[in-house]
Amino acid sequence: MKLYDMELSGNCYKVRLFAALVGIELELVPVDLAAGEHKQSPFIDLNPWAQVPVLEDGEVLLRDSQAILVYLARQYGGHQWWPDSPVHQGEVMQWLSTAANEIHAGPNVARLIDKFGYPLDKARALAVSDRVLPLIERHLSEHRWMALGRPTLAECAVFPYIALGWEGGVTLEPYPAIRAWIERIKALPGFVAMPGV
Amino acid sequence: MKLYDMELSGNCYKVRLFAALVGIELELVPVDLAAGEHKQSPFIDLNPWAQVPVLEDGEVLLRDSQAILVYLARQYGGHQWWPDSPVHQGEVMQWLSTAANEIHAGPNVARLIDKFGYPLDKARALAVSDRVLPLIERHLSEHRWMALGRPTLAECAVFPYIALGWEGGVTLEPYPAIRAWIERIKALPGFVAMPGV
Repeated sequence: MKLYDMELSGNCYKVRLFAALVGIELELVPVDLAAGEHKQSPFIDLNPWAQVPVLEDGEVLLRDSQAILVYLARQYGGHQWWPDSPVHQGEVMQWLSTAANEIHAGPNVARLIDKFGYPLDKARALAVSDRVLPLIERHLSEHRWMALGRPTLAECAVFPYIALGWEGGVTLEPYPAIRAWIERIKALPGFVAMPGV
Repeated sequence: MKLYDMELSGNCYKVRLFAALVGIELELVPVDLAAGEHKQSPFIDLNPWAQVPVLEDGEVLLRDSQAILVYLARQYGGHQWWPDSPVHQGEVMQWLSTAANEIHAGPNVARLIDKFGYPLDKARALAVSDRVLPLIERHLSEHRWMALGRPTLAECAVFPYIALGWEGGVTLEPYPAIRAWIERIKALPGFVAMPGV
């Protein structure tokens, strides 16, 4: 099973992290974004959105990190991480949306600007971070994990860009519960890091 | 089952639309965002994120439109709309992420600025729209529906803000396949509109 990957992408790391935690073997295919490889054939034919990660598992071809997480959990025995019950799936799904929306627009965009020079709005990225991180801090001061009292896909989706936010000037200094949660994730059996985490 | 709702919110409309399409009865509880009702008790106690929609179904309490869609489909017999199989779930999930990310940051933000006076970056919202709509146009010129060859939760999540984009200056004039898809959705049994759609 191939993961089209970039080492420094937090979205790719979401998939690498989950695969490591549940013991799925991935063949990593590096895509050189700096050289524009994602905007050319053959990559653009796999994913017209010109984004990593992309998963290729036999006939299955998926873009989007959250979609790949859901597929992998359901296909390869990760029911603890992406449960069947309607309400449990809804609870985890809340955090997958938060990852695709606020975490993306906040810490991720701040990092894209500072680390990769993207011409995006830094003040806006910091404002989104300042709105969302206290909400997550409050949640984690009352819960050990994002949802269901245990690690789920919510951790894999939300953790990477929060842990990488310092590369965009988004400090976790005011958020002890988030920092403790990060340490709990790092202590999970099978945990793998990426540069900056 | 209560939906804390605002009539002009496309995110709330996603839920009202799906409920209408599959015949789920919702008790709508209007939240007056203009008066700041979402930032005060009792609403803020239900959802500290201060956002609509919120679903209350007995003991179940969920924020986030995509999470509510997944819960409702799984709980109330919408398996056609949110299937069990790993790859089918992954394929629909791609579009739920697109709704939470690009559709949110593009047509939705453009509309928030023009219609509600939010102090956000209009040029950026239009740029995101100009990137994502041609990709969706291309997809819909090859497929009748977002995923699986039939209407799924992907339609309920992606359609509202694309159809409302004109209120933010995002025209669909260059996108005949998107316009034809919108007409197919409007022809679905049970379809309900909202102001602007």
